Amino acid sequence: MDTTTRIAQALNAALASVEGDGCPPRLAAAVRHAVVPGGARIRPQLCLAVALAHGDDAPRLADSAAAAIELLHCASLVHDDLPCFDNAALRRGVSTVHAAYGERLAVLTGDALIVLAFQLIGQSGAQHPQRMARVLATVSRGVGMPLGIVAGQAWECEPRVTLQDYQRAKTGALFAAATMAGADAAGADSQPWRALGELLGEAYQVADDIRDVAADPVLLGKPIGQDQALGRPSAAAEQGLGGAVRYFEELMDRAVASIPSCPREAQFRALVRREAERLVPAALCADLVKLAA
Amino acid sequence: MDTTTRIAQALNAALASVEGDGCPPRLAAAVRHAVVPGGARIRPQLCLAVALAHGDDAPRLADSAAAAIELLHCASLVHDDLPCFDNAALRRGVSTVHAAYGERLAVLTGDALIVLAFQLIGQSGAQHPQRMARVLATVSRGVGMPLGIVAGQAWECEPRVTLQDYQRAKTGALFAAATMAGADAAGADSQPWRALGELLGEAYQVADDIRDVAADPVLLGKPIGQDQALGRPSAAAEQGLGGAVRYFEELMDRAVASIPSCPREAQFRALVRREAERLVPAALCADLVKLAA
Repeated sequence: MDTTTRIAQALNAALASVEGDGCPPRLAAAVRHAVVPGGARIRPQLCLAVALAHGDDAPRLADSAAAAIELLHCASLVHDDLPCFDNAALRRGVSTVHAAYGERLAVLTGDALIVLAFQLIGQSGAQHPQRMARVLATVSRGVGMPLGIVAGQAWECEPRVTLQDYQRAKTGALFAAATMAGADAAGADSQPWRALGELLGEAYQVADDIRDVAADPVLLGKPIGQDQALGRPSAAAEQGLGGAVRYFEELMDRAVASIPSCPREAQFRALVRREAERLVPAALCADLVKLAA
Repeated sequence: MDTTTRIAQALNAALASVEGDGCPPRLAAAVRHAVVPGGARIRPQLCLAVALAHGDDAPRLADSAAAAIELLHCASLVHDDLPCFDNAALRRGVSTVHAAYGERLAVLTGDALIVLAFQLIGQSGAQHPQRMARVLATVSRGVGMPLGIVAGQAWECEPRVTLQDYQRAKTGALFAAATMAGADAAGADSQPWRALGELLGEAYQVADDIRDVAADPVLLGKPIGQDQALGRPSAAAEQGLGGAVRYFEELMDRAVASIPSCPREAQFRALVRREAERLVPAALCADLVKLAA
């Protein structure tokens, strides 16, 4: 089964397991709205790619780790879109959860997704309880305090923050959890995979900053110019568009160079290069650098 | 060490473990504000009481289960107090988190507390990974969908709900998780402890409904009359004050009768009776029944 199918099935099974008898129907609908159809699923793809690189001998745990990370990512989007943060009406081209179901259900949807993520990890560790505990530790570190994505979002409520601290926590932490949890699930040492996750996360955030300034809002599926409007730290604002594009390319080169030696190293490099191209197409990079010159 | 000290130490250690270097300082302060000094800690007390009744041979896991349940309770209070729900300015006689730190940090504080609760359970299972997985399953069921406290809160967003479904999920589910996780942590069968938790939770909610109508707002630490103002299901509204008091007493009798046979059964009965007295003093019960007659 390919990884895209594995991720979709694991997410569907997780949702189905909690939508049953006795669940408030609007909560169940809002939770599904937040997760399906979803975006590129890049974090769970990374997680499974690392598990496969290490033999993937506990695929149920790897699938749960991957799905849990995606559920946590979806939770963070639902809460980030709330009126008190971005007040976004659109996400991936459709209504955000609070726009479709109201603010109260959006708060609860995020909460329910966080709980479901940890429940899922717990359920899949029967055969590998020690590995499950490592996945749980890795994932909770990527989400919580002091350095996970919740802390990253909280930097928006502080008077001062460096761009790097902000991006590392807001985006890098969950990417690092994705690569590392893939190794944990396969019984491998996860530390060598941390750098790849952090660099990809930072690159992803810089790409987002670039697209927030330069992209077509219809293709992007959400309004542009939000970072500036909301006064958020942004690589494009700090380094200019040309500088941000060069920084993105440098991060991607460092990400490729950081890939630990493993049986599928070449495939891994190709995956990272493909992802770079998807995030900020080379043609757009060239145009932007020319424009900024 | 008495259970009150154990709970306070476990909560403090959990907070200290994530407030360190790199944490946004206002988030750390808001999270601590949500947890300390706290209320009666009745859920973690129940959890430890059940663990002790079964020998408490894994006290670190029991402490973590107890503290995790209290962190999840605090998270639910922070989110329930948000402007989109109760819009409460006071909780336990002091400012709510959103009143003190703003709505954005209140959303993130709840999120961070949920993550910390699961992180804590995961960290304390090294010596008993199978028990840890059971604690994790019990606790996540008490909080998440379809029947946990997040679902209970979501019933407020549905056009129709029965009082019992609402109270069972909104309050009973986490009380049941507390009694059951205590048994899980001590390696005992948790199912026989479910009824006690559910009945105490329902009694606690009925007591809350009674106090919402009858109590002194200064002693209660929050405004009264909120259930009616917010159109929430309430035993006092549905059955009248006298009926609610009689129902509370019946639930407490059933709770005492449900206590499974265990070495400290007599102490357990005394604990439940003391808690009943704390929740709705017998003198107040008598007055209310007289008034309603």
